[in-house]
Amino acid sequence: MKYPVIDAIIIPEGRLDVLSKAEVSKLLDTSQGGLYRLFRNCSLAVLNCGSTLDDGKELLERYPDFEIRVVQEQRGIKLDIKAAPAHAFVDGNMIKGINEHLFTVLRDIIYVSDEITDNPKIDLDSSDGVSSAVFHILRNANILRPMTPPKLVVCWGGHSISRKEYDYSKIVGYELGLRGLDICTGCGPGAMKGPMKGATIGHAKQRIKNGQYLGITEPGIIAAESPNPIVNELVILPDIEKRLEAFVRTGHGIVVFPGGAGTAEEILYILGVLLHPDNKDMPFPLVFTGLDSSEDYFKEIDRFIAGTLGESARQRYKIIINDPVEVAREMQAGIQQVRQFRKEKGDAYYFNWLLKVDVPFQQPFIPTHDNMRNLALNKEQDSHLLAANLRRAFSGIVAGNVKDDGIRAIEQYGHFEIRGDTEIMALMDSLLASFVEQHRMKLPGKKYVPCYKIIK
Amino acid sequence: MKYPVIDAIIIPEGRLDVLSKAEVSKLLDTSQGGLYRLFRNCSLAVLNCGSTLDDGKELLERYPDFEIRVVQEQRGIKLDIKAAPAHAFVDGNMIKGINEHLFTVLRDIIYVSDEITDNPKIDLDSSDGVSSAVFHILRNANILRPMTPPKLVVCWGGHSISRKEYDYSKIVGYELGLRGLDICTGCGPGAMKGPMKGATIGHAKQRIKNGQYLGITEPGIIAAESPNPIVNELVILPDIEKRLEAFVRTGHGIVVFPGGAGTAEEILYILGVLLHPDNKDMPFPLVFTGLDSSEDYFKEIDRFIAGTLGESARQRYKIIINDPVEVAREMQAGIQQVRQFRKEKGDAYYFNWLLKVDVPFQQPFIPTHDNMRNLALNKEQDSHLLAANLRRAFSGIVAGNVKDDGIRAIEQYGHFEIRGDTEIMALMDSLLASFVEQHRMKLPGKKYVPCYKIIK
Amino acid sequence: MKYPVIDAIIIPEGRLDVLSKAEVSKLLDTSQGGLYRLFRNCSLAVLNCGSTLDDGKELLERYPDFEIRVVQEQRGIKLDIKAAPAHAFVDGNMIKGINEHLFTVLRDIIYVSDEITDNPKIDLDSSDGVSSAVFHILRNANILRPMTPPKLVVCWGGHSISRKEYDYSKIVGYELGLRGLDICTGCGPGAMKGPMKGATIGHAKQRIKNGQYLGITEPGIIAAESPNPIVNELVILPDIEKRLEAFVRTGHGIVVFPGGAGTAEEILYILGVLLHPDNKDMPFPLVFTGLDSSEDYFKEIDRFIAGTLGESARQRYKIIINDPVEVAREMQAGIQQVRQFRKEKGDAYYFNWLLKVDVPFQQPFIPTHDNMRNLALNKEQDSHLLAANLRRAFSGIVAGNVKDDGIRAIEQYGHFEIRGDTEIMALMDSLLASFVEQHRMKLPGKKYVPCYKIIK
Amino acid sequence: MKYPVIDAIIIPEGRLDVLSKAEVSKLLDTSQGGLYRLFRNCSLAVLNCGSTLDDGKELLERYPDFEIRVVQEQRGIKLDIKAAPAHAFVDGNMIKGINEHLFTVLRDIIYVSDEITDNPKIDLDSSDGVSSAVFHILRNANILRPMTPPKLVVCWGGHSISRKEYDYSKIVGYELGLRGLDICTGCGPGAMKGPMKGATIGHAKQRIKNGQYLGITEPGIIAAESPNPIVNELVILPDIEKRLEAFVRTGHGIVVFPGGAGTAEEILYILGVLLHPDNKDMPFPLVFTGLDSSEDYFKEIDRFIAGTLGESARQRYKIIINDPVEVAREMQAGIQQVRQFRKEKGDAYYFNWLLKVDVPFQQPFIPTHDNMRNLALNKEQDSHLLAANLRRAFSGIVAGNVKDDGIRAIEQYGHFEIRGDTEIMALMDSLLASFVEQHRMKLPGKKYVPCYKIIK
Repeated sequence: MKYPVIDAIIIPEGRLDVLSKAEVSKLLDTSQGGLYRLFRNCSLAVLNCGSTLDDGKELLERYPDFEIRVVQEQRGIKLDIKAAPAHAFVDGNMIKGINEHLFTVLRDIIYVSDEITDNPKIDLDSSDGVSSAVFHILRNANILRPMTPPKLVVCWGGHSISRKEYDYSKIVGYELGLRGLDICTGCGPGAMKGPMKGATIGHAKQRIKNGQYLGITEPGIIAAESPNPIVNELVILPDIEKRLEAFVRTGHGIVVFPGGAGTAEEILYILGVLLHPDNKDMPFPLVFTGLDSSEDYFKEIDRFIAGTLGESARQRYKIIINDPVEVAREMQAGIQQVRQFRKEKGDAYYFNWLLKVDVPFQQPFIPTHDNMRNLALNKEQDSHLLAANLRRAFSGIVAGNVKDDGIRAIEQYGHFEIRGDTEIMALMDSLLASFVEQHRMKLPGKKYVPCYKIIK
Repeated sequence: MKYPVIDAIIIPEGRLDVLSKAEVSKLLDTSQGGLYRLFRNCSLAVLNCGSTLDDGKELLERYPDFEIRVVQEQRGIKLDIKAAPAHAFVDGNMIKGINEHLFTVLRDIIYVSDEITDNPKIDLDSSDGVSSAVFHILRNANILRPMTPPKLVVCWGGHSISRKEYDYSKIVGYELGLRGLDICTGCGPGAMKGPMKGATIGHAKQRIKNGQYLGITEPGIIAAESPNPIVNELVILPDIEKRLEAFVRTGHGIVVFPGGAGTAEEILYILGVLLHPDNKDMPFPLVFTGLDSSEDYFKEIDRFIAGTLGESARQRYKIIINDPVEVAREMQAGIQQVRQFRKEKGDAYYFNWLLKVDVPFQQPFIPTHDNMRNLALNKEQDSHLLAANLRRAFSGIVAGNVKDDGIRAIEQYGHFEIRGDTEIMALMDSLLASFVEQHRMKLPGKKYVPCYKIIK
Repeated sequence: MKYPVIDAIIIPEGRLDVLSKAEVSKLLDTSQGGLYRLFRNCSLAVLNCGSTLDDGKELLERYPDFEIRVVQEQRGIKLDIKAAPAHAFVDGNMIKGINEHLFTVLRDIIYVSDEITDNPKIDLDSSDGVSSAVFHILRNANILRPMTPPKLVVCWGGHSISRKEYDYSKIVGYELGLRGLDICTGCGPGAMKGPMKGATIGHAKQRIKNGQYLGITEPGIIAAESPNPIVNELVILPDIEKRLEAFVRTGHGIVVFPGGAGTAEEILYILGVLLHPDNKDMPFPLVFTGLDSSEDYFKEIDRFIAGTLGESARQRYKIIINDPVEVAREMQAGIQQVRQFRKEKGDAYYFNWLLKVDVPFQQPFIPTHDNMRNLALNKEQDSHLLAANLRRAFSGIVAGNVKDDGIRAIEQYGHFEIRGDTEIMALMDSLLASFVEQHRMKLPGKKYVPCYKIIK
Repeated sequence: MKYPVIDAIIIPEGRLDVLSKAEVSKLLDTSQGGLYRLFRNCSLAVLNCGSTLDDGKELLERYPDFEIRVVQEQRGIKLDIKAAPAHAFVDGNMIKGINEHLFTVLRDIIYVSDEITDNPKIDLDSSDGVSSAVFHILRNANILRPMTPPKLVVCWGGHSISRKEYDYSKIVGYELGLRGLDICTGCGPGAMKGPMKGATIGHAKQRIKNGQYLGITEPGIIAAESPNPIVNELVILPDIEKRLEAFVRTGHGIVVFPGGAGTAEEILYILGVLLHPDNKDMPFPLVFTGLDSSEDYFKEIDRFIAGTLGESARQRYKIIINDPVEVAREMQAGIQQVRQFRKEKGDAYYFNWLLKVDVPFQQPFIPTHDNMRNLALNKEQDSHLLAANLRRAFSGIVAGNVKDDGIRAIEQYGHFEIRGDTEIMALMDSLLASFVEQHRMKLPGKKYVPCYKIIK
């Protein structure tokens, strides 16, 4: 099948429009040098928004002729694109939201690489250095809003959910929006799109014109979960771990909808962080919610957490079934506490400096077959460290399911092997099996072939 | 069944906030005098938004204790409401969009009554006087936007449509919104809500923050078709005829979705106006559109028009089946011609002064049993006058279906009798029968009992 | 001498741009009918701003060929002007502030005449009716700002003052502006321009972008005291009395600089109003201020008030010599009390409804020779009524000094005769003589010939 | 004499409000380390605005107890100041414009030091590196406005000018403002304040709300020429040479009023730059203007230029005497050409990348007695290089006149010796003598003692 494509010259809308000569030539070099593939693939992902594809590899194969080039003009820069997906355009003009996202890719892939990665002042080996990098990337993306009360709700959940679950996530977003709350998600389809759509309508009814619909992504996932243009602020963090840190430092509370391995990864991340002794008194509203039909799903998750991280982890969240109004009220009340806490401690509203995120949650995890095999999935460690390792396991499974690199590795070397304590392995096996059964691993219409094997 | 209610004191948001002492006391008098019932019922309708009720009589019976009172304060006014529908509130606070609509009712029912009806300078018996009244009401509602290029698309169609048809109307609205076009509807559910929701998403993607979602209604219909709070500009015209004139003078083009008697009334109105010899050269894009499943519906309409108003009426519209993009492009191109025409003629963009609306289309038609029986539905008149009479016939049927007064009249005196040329009666019978069969007369879930009888 | 002139077609900037066909044709009629001379002369006055002429008659004679015509366009109106003063233009384009003022004239002379004077609902014979008319004119001019705390300081004083006095008035304005206060004046040169210029700089330093520089004038005085374009809100009341009422109902406090007969008129007006028993508890900050060299001037005024209106009038003002900071602080503190009072009484911040302005202060006074001769200037009346009559006397002298009609009357019939109690006449003679001596009657450079004669 | 002082804690207004923990602690270190004296003195200068002192040394001695400290808060920073000049406050609150300027000092002295001086990516030894540094400092100060047509007029001239000359500069600013042009100056008193005040009034009359009043200064001069709070954008460049480069790269044209040694330095700088062969075709409107009484002054300057730089330099400017309208028109026309040129060349409107500024104009010149004595002031070099050296000579004289370091050096070592070609020395001697005679070296009221000696 041949997909319709369009060539175009794109002028930036309000970003990257004041650059020095040196910066422009650096951009040109970097964008055509070693980072070209990354830049091109992320750009393609952004252009592909609105499509229902969740397979990074397939996307790249669909538009083999796609090219993007930064074009120098003394007054600034333009983007010259060839063979781009036609659905990013309306009557030949690129949709403005997509235009913005395209320049976001340039900003976050190329510019940030120059300013963060190549910056001797930022020590990416230290915990503070990583947090600082996350801060700088977010500030550079103009996402940190001073003088604004806390109101950003992060919504996590599967990209592959049923229509009913999607509609439920919309209603939750609508109730959040009616209460003046903003939405942050990972910016793909499903549970990441529903709440934003709902909040848009809620905000419209409350005459809120500057609602924030923040998408936080990373290069590996953007192709599978391309940002919907409703996302009016987008930022691409360099890797999964910085993306997760960005979620928990900018968001003031989290709502989790049903999902698959990616959602499990996110749940383990936030619980692992909150279990750190330093975060004992930190308020952080966390709600798991879904329709009646999702009750079993959350029971499974709850059992898994109880069996691995223990009771103290269970104290950190509430499960609310089929009650969007209650979810919204719980968030509102929780965020009120967050506000009080930050005020008392003198912490910023726009960035949670006081949250302790430990090194194991910051170091990038590369899901090679070896790394996956060697994960320490046992109880001979503090529960927040076990959480860190469990998080890595699920992270690897996400890669094997939907990321270009991961899919290719599985094609080449076979499935990942996951080993650990018998009890943990049993819980994990059961949880993953339920994901497969409930079609939460991939978008519907395709049979799921597991990329992993639990070694008991 | 008991419906939850709430009492509240409401402060105006941005409207009616600079009143003279005399005006305030006039408002008090009028709102508690002869207009109280109208004011109360329209207010209740506005508060009932979001509900799926289309029966004006039932609504009034659901909230029998509802009361609203204008409260004087030297600094201005407030509204004291008792036993209002609870779903107009979020956690005890009225939704801001509904608050605005409530003061719109006050403005358009009470204030306008003082300024228009009691104004000796406005001669409501002359055609110019009526147009002037429409203009003043719209200007007073702050709806006329000078210095703005034409971009307002009126969407007509049934309040009772299938989920599929509703989704289609959303997609059409989305495509219109992507092209920067605004939406005006009669502001009930169904085809009047879908395009606005779609356009909201389209505007969000194009970063359009000041999109206009204009609702034009009248006291008789507002209870059955209460304005969704997405409507960010609302105006209540005194009667059906002025409402229809408001549509065609402010809108720059019209899209018609499938509907029932009300939609037929609207189609006959616009065709009748356009058939007037003075409007021969006036560009006015008019598109009928729906899903494949609606193709027969529009064929029926088309046949009815051909058989009653003739070929010249058929030249005035296009039927586009299952192609939202084509609908949006057609509108955009048509509005381009409207702009050109207004520029050449020096007419305002925000009000179509040059359109001839003849007296028969302006005089209020009261659908008593007598008036309905005596309509001249024959071909011994100019086609635009026949259109006027056919319009009245359908208008009466709408009243009998959904309006409080109409329903009570039918309960008391039995169905309306409609008489006329055999051929016309046959066409009408067949059209109405198809509406009934397709469940276009009432919201689903209730059996439709016809309020009329065709006398052949 | 020949003054340079320019012809131009002017498009309204943001006002009068949404008119009905009927309104446009009414405007055309009215502007070319009986009101033409008034409309023309006021327009010429506005165009003459920045000039240092204070002689209405001379102005009219300088530009004998000046013409202005409302030109109909279906989309709205334009102004066609011939032989206008060239200094209203920059390189052929009219200064934007003057453009706005020109349409203000049209609005307030023509439109208001249609809406107020011809409106049977407004009874200009009753006190409430007059106040209502003032309110409507101000609201129509968009001058009443709801939701804004009180901060408008009225500045009165002579149009003909020395450079030093002018500079002092600028510094007072500057100190008011630094404290976030806005300025309202009669909008001519001298003490009416200085405070606005000063406040502009004060506001700029405090980064206040929406400072209000309100000019309130009337047709008889506008030619002699044409509005400086710094005035960003202008309103033309129909006569002196309504203009004075507009000052005291919109302003939250008054600063009086040295001046001549006009200033005396204003002082007598505000004191007369405040002396009314109903206003006994009404807070109203009133400060007389000037340089050391003006100390004698204010002593003279103070003596005059003591000798005519008595001690209770003296309690109503403070005299502050050569201390701009103290003036500004006094105003700020007084306005704080005004705010408190309005809040307690529930009165609007933008219009002082509770202030009692009695009929003698509202009825237009026509300074014919007869009327002047028959003024009751004696102590056999309440002091606020004596204030009303003294106000009239000074009002007549202003007309004889600077107004077109007044000057012509004096040319024809000789000076006005003013009679009354010996003591009052002595005080008045002395006060007027000091005005003449101090060159406060006319702009410098011309010998002043008195237009009045005190009959002792 | 004792000057009144105030202590205060100041919260930033809109700048520096989103800082990372690392940045805050860096700020604290830097501001209390080696840069403390610079930071303190510049802060004091900014607080001293509105005073008429032009003696950096005297200022520092007036407020010996003044201290300023950056105070850390996790949410951001505050400034703790002790014994600050009382006139920076209104009733205990710092004037908002001064508050902004204070944080500008912090930003440009401390932050920029971290980002520019310590940045290995910026090579301050190369010409491109210096230009890049200037660009980064300006961009960081948010001064570069993309998407804006060229309209920034730089006004140079003496800080010590007569009242008449000052008034003239105001009128020129007024005429520029009436034509929509913005103003940039060195931000002291005299010819640097007048045009901004005038333009403020001109902009107010044209209803321009976002006028730019840009002040460009450097640490050595800021104490003597403290920024007036009308300056709504302020930037402090690290040294004289970068400040001059900032003027000519951001400004679109230059108006020069009469001045002393500083003005001569500026004239020699711009002429030297424009004489570079690469700039031969670069349009750059340059006007010298003053009252009739300044005609001789400009003749002197003109003769000096003719005698040193030759006829080609004279082609680059126009002298316009006593005609503010003509000055404004000349600028407007010249800037039109600048716009055309940039458009053709694809250069930015907000930064003149194409202007060649050669190394001799970029290297900081330290006016030690040795450096002054060794300046090559002869004709055995290209005229643009002679201009560079002459510029340095005048720069040294400015330092000896008004800068803290310079005054102390002269106090210690006696006057500077200046040597060179006889003809050039004669011209220079005569020019400097005329400055002294016309009281252009220092603010009035003090006898000027020359800090230099011409060695012929």
